[in-house]
Amino acid sequence: MRTPISSPSPLAPLVGVALLTGCVSSASPPEPAPRTSRGPSPAVEAARSFREAQGPAILADFAELLKIPNVASDLGNIRRNAEAIQSRLAARGVRTALWELDGVPPIVFGRLDAPGADRTIGIYVHYDGQPVDPTRWLQSPWEPTLYTREPSAGGTRRALPEPGEPIDPEWRLYARAAGDDKAPIAALCAALDALEAAGISRTVNVVFFFEGEEEAGSPNLARYLDLHAAELDVDAWLICDGPVHASRRPQLVFGVRGIVGLEITVYGALRSLHSGHYGNWAPNPGMLLAQLLASMKDADGNVLVEGFHDGNAPLGARERAAIAATPDVDASLREELGLARTEGDGQTLAERLLLPSLNVRGLESASVGASARNVIPNRATASLDLRLVRGNDPTVQCELVEEHVRRQGFHVVREDPDRATRLRHARIAKVTRRGGYPAARTPMDAWIVAPLVEAAWSAAGEEPVLVPSLGGSLPLYLFTERNEAPLIVLPIANHDDNQHAPDEHIRIANLWYGIDLFAAVLTMEP
Amino acid sequence: MRTPISSPSPLAPLVGVALLTGCVSSASPPEPAPRTSRGPSPAVEAARSFREAQGPAILADFAELLKIPNVASDLGNIRRNAEAIQSRLAARGVRTALWELDGVPPIVFGRLDAPGADRTIGIYVHYDGQPVDPTRWLQSPWEPTLYTREPSAGGTRRALPEPGEPIDPEWRLYARAAGDDKAPIAALCAALDALEAAGISRTVNVVFFFEGEEEAGSPNLARYLDLHAAELDVDAWLICDGPVHASRRPQLVFGVRGIVGLEITVYGALRSLHSGHYGNWAPNPGMLLAQLLASMKDADGNVLVEGFHDGNAPLGARERAAIAATPDVDASLREELGLARTEGDGQTLAERLLLPSLNVRGLESASVGASARNVIPNRATASLDLRLVRGNDPTVQCELVEEHVRRQGFHVVREDPDRATRLRHARIAKVTRRGGYPAARTPMDAWIVAPLVEAAWSAAGEEPVLVPSLGGSLPLYLFTERNEAPLIVLPIANHDDNQHAPDEHIRIANLWYGIDLFAAVLTMEP
Repeated sequence: MRTPISSPSPLAPLVGVALLTGCVSSASPPEPAPRTSRGPSPAVEAARSFREAQGPAILADFAELLKIPNVASDLGNIRRNAEAIQSRLAARGVRTALWELDGVPPIVFGRLDAPGADRTIGIYVHYDGQPVDPTRWLQSPWEPTLYTREPSAGGTRRALPEPGEPIDPEWRLYARAAGDDKAPIAALCAALDALEAAGISRTVNVVFFFEGEEEAGSPNLARYLDLHAAELDVDAWLICDGPVHASRRPQLVFGVRGIVGLEITVYGALRSLHSGHYGNWAPNPGMLLAQLLASMKDADGNVLVEGFHDGNAPLGARERAAIAATPDVDASLREELGLARTEGDGQTLAERLLLPSLNVRGLESASVGASARNVIPNRATASLDLRLVRGNDPTVQCELVEEHVRRQGFHVVREDPDRATRLRHARIAKVTRRGGYPAARTPMDAWIVAPLVEAAWSAAGEEPVLVPSLGGSLPLYLFTERNEAPLIVLPIANHDDNQHAPDEHIRIANLWYGIDLFAAVLTMEP
Repeated sequence: MRTPISSPSPLAPLVGVALLTGCVSSASPPEPAPRTSRGPSPAVEAARSFREAQGPAILADFAELLKIPNVASDLGNIRRNAEAIQSRLAARGVRTALWELDGVPPIVFGRLDAPGADRTIGIYVHYDGQPVDPTRWLQSPWEPTLYTREPSAGGTRRALPEPGEPIDPEWRLYARAAGDDKAPIAALCAALDALEAAGISRTVNVVFFFEGEEEAGSPNLARYLDLHAAELDVDAWLICDGPVHASRRPQLVFGVRGIVGLEITVYGALRSLHSGHYGNWAPNPGMLLAQLLASMKDADGNVLVEGFHDGNAPLGARERAAIAATPDVDASLREELGLARTEGDGQTLAERLLLPSLNVRGLESASVGASARNVIPNRATASLDLRLVRGNDPTVQCELVEEHVRRQGFHVVREDPDRATRLRHARIAKVTRRGGYPAARTPMDAWIVAPLVEAAWSAAGEEPVLVPSLGGSLPLYLFTERNEAPLIVLPIANHDDNQHAPDEHIRIANLWYGIDLFAAVLTMEP
C-alpha cells in the first residue's frame, strides 16, 4: 500500500530551484535513444512496494552502517566498515571477498551473476568518508540522526521510524557518508531484497567494487585495479558517487575533464631592487610574465598555444545533439555571476567545457595594496591549470605550453636559476608541473546508455539530465585506461547533502530513488 | 698644527669600494664648469686648523646635542633639541627664531647676513631622527659613544678625546641622528667658529631652516614653507641630508624623481569559480590583467602609454655631459645582479633614470605554489609605481595610464563594481592612485653649481660625484615648486652610517669634511 506521503517520483523535482551548476543538459535525451516504456517497470514497482513496507528496517540497517566511523586513515574502523558491508552483500547471495594490501583500506569485492546474463556491470562505490570536525556538527558524525527537514528550514530531530510508521521522503538522515558515499550501498542492498521478495530475476551480472580511501585521493586504486584486472573485466562501469542535478532531476554523467597544474616563474635581478634606483633599467618580472601570459590567449579567451587542440577527440553525434539540446542557461548564469561577456565569442558553457582550457588560477609577485613596496620584484609566478578533454595527454599538453614559452624567447628551467644561468639567458622561465591525469569520456552511443536512461526514467519518472562531460576532474581514467568498457557516473544523493562538510546527510527521497534505480538497473534490458 | 693622523683630504677616499648604488657619475665635472683653484681655499685651511686645535671641544659639544632624544613624536624632547640648536646658532651671531604650529615640532629658523653679500643660500637640515629600538643598539641611542672603528671591523669603545688629544678621523661617534641628520648642524657651528677665529668674512647670506619631523614624513613642511615664504626667499637651497657617495667621494645631487602609486584591479565573476565547471567560459581576471599590462610596455621595456614622455623636461647640455661622462657601471651591475639584459635597448642606467618609469611592483590573484587552488579567481590586481622626471605632473601621468586602460576596452571605476555595473561592461578596471608628488631637478648650469663644486673640491681635495637626478624620490618639490631657486642635495655623512638602523654613527672624517665644506660654502664666490 502506498502511503500518501510516498511519491511515485521519489526525487520530487522542484521547479525553479536555484541553478547551482552550469552542467545542465536538456530534458530531451539525445536522439535516437530508444525509450520502450514511460511508466515504472515491474522492478521499480517492486522496489517501491518493498521500501514502503520495509522503510523503517531499511533506515535502521543503514543507520547501523553509518555508525561505524569511516575516515580512510582509521584502518581499524575502515576494516569494520568493510566487514559490515561484506556481510550485507553475502547475506544477499553475493560471492564476496576483501581484497587487501598491507596498511591500506581493503576493497570490498563482490560478484552476483544472473542466470543467462551476457552482460556484466561493475558498480563502484566508496565506503570511506571525508575527515570530520565533530565540533561543527549538530551531533556526532557517527550518531545517525533523523531530521524532519534541514534544521535551517525548520526541521526538527526525531527518532528513526518504528516498523509500520509512514516515512516522509523529505526527512533527512544526518551522518558522515550518509550521502557521500554509503547511500548507494544501502540502496543496492534494499534493491536486491526487493527483487528477491517480488521474485523478479536480475538480467545482468554485477561486480561490486567498493573502495575504502577515495576521500584520501585513491592512492592504491590503480594497484587494486591492476592486481584484480581479471575479476574486474566488466562490460560497463557505473560510478555511484556524487549528487544528482541541482534541479533534483536524475543525472547521468558521461565523462570528466582531466587536469594538470603548471607553474611558471619568471625572473628579474637576483634580489628585489629599489624601483627608484633601478626602475626603467632592471627587467621587471611582473611585466615579463604579463607579456608571456598575454601571448597564450586571444582577446576572446581562445588558447593560442600551437597544437593545444590537436589531440581533442571529436564529439559523436549524440554528444553534439546533447549539447545542442542543452537549454540556454548562459544568460541566467551571466546574470548570477555578474558577467557582461564570456570567453569564446558566443560559444555556450556546454560547448566550452568540451574543450581543453588554460586557466590562470593564481598570480604572485611581491605585494599589492597597503603592503605594496617600491621594488622591482625579483620574480613573478603564475599558477595555471590545464583542463583536458578526451584525447589530450597531460604530458603533451604541458609540453605544448612549454614549447610556447620557449617560442616567446624564454630559456626553460626546472629550478631557480643560478647567477651563471641568469647571465647566459635574457629571459628565463621555470616551468614545473603538478600532478595531472587525463580526461575520461564515454561515447553516448555506448551499449549501456539507452538502458540506463530508461532505468533512470523508470525510477524517477522524468528525464535524466545527460551531461557529456563534467567541466571538473576526477581520476576516472584509472578505469577507462584499463578497460574499454563504457563508464558512467550515476549519482543518487541530493545536491544539497553537505558532502565534505559538517552535517552531511541524505534526503530520504534520494535514498528511495537509489533503491528504485538499482532495481531498474539490475533488471535492465541490455 | 697638523697632527700625523689628520688628512688634508678628510674623506680619505677608498679605491675599489664595493659599488652600492647605480647612481655613479664621472670624475670629470660637466664642462664648462669653471675651476679657479686646486688647493684648499683659505677658508678651508682655517677650518682645518680650527678643528685640529678644537676637535675635542667640537666632539664634546656635538655629543651634548646627540644626548637629547629626537624622535619627532616626542614633542618635549624635540623642543629641547630645537632650543639647544637655537642657542648654538644665536651664540654665533645668527638671528634666530622658533617657528611653531600647535602640537608639531618647531622649525629652527636663523638668518646670518654677510656684509655686502648679494646672494642668500638656504640650508635645510632636519634635527629629528628615526625611531629607535634600544634593545638592538650597542648602547643607548642617546648615549653618544666613540669607537675607534666600527666594532665589526675590530673597533673598540673609547672615551671622548681630552683637549689637545689627537683624533683619528676613522673614529666613529655612535648615536641616533649622528649621521642623519644632526651632523650638518655640528659642522655648521664649527665652520662659523673657524671663520670667526681666522677673521675670514663670509660672502653669502645664510638662512637656516631646520625641520623637526622629516623622519615622520614632513607632514607640516608645506605649511611652514607657506607661512614663512618671505623669510625663505633664498637664491639657492642646500639640502644637507643623506650620505656621500659609496666611494667616499663627495657628492652633489641635482634632483630626484617624483613618484605616484597606481593600483589596477580587473574582475572576473562576482565570486571565484571552480576552474573545472567554468574554465574556458568565465573570463579570467589574471589573463585580462596580463593582457592589459602587456600593452603598456614593449619587449625592450619602453613605455607604450601614449603621451607618457610628452611632459619630460629636456636635459641641458651639462646634464647630457654628466651622463655621457658617467663611467660604464652597467656591466658590473649586470654581473652583480645576474642580468643578461636590461631594459631600453642598450641605454645606460644613468640615461634610464632620467626618464619616467612604469614599474609593476606587485601582482596578486588568488594563490600560487602549494596553496594554489583550481579556481578562476574573481579578481587580479597589479600595483604599479610611476617614477616621474622634471616636467611630469603626477595627476597627468596617472590620467595617461588610465586613458590607456580605457583604450584597451576597460570601463574605469574607483570602487569595486556592483553587479549592475558588471553586467553593463565587459571589461572593468578599478584604478586608484596612492600618494604621489612630482620630481625636482635643478639645471646643472644654475648659478650655484660651479661655486659649490669648487667648494666641495676644495674641502675634499677631489672631484665630487655629480648626479643629475637620483632614481629614487624625495619630496623636494615642496621647495622647488615654491621657489625658482636652484636646490642641491649636499650630504656629508658616510654612506655606511647605519642611517635609519641601530648603531647609527658618523665617521669623524665625514664630520671634518662637513666643517671644511661649510667653511668653503660660506665663503664661496658666487
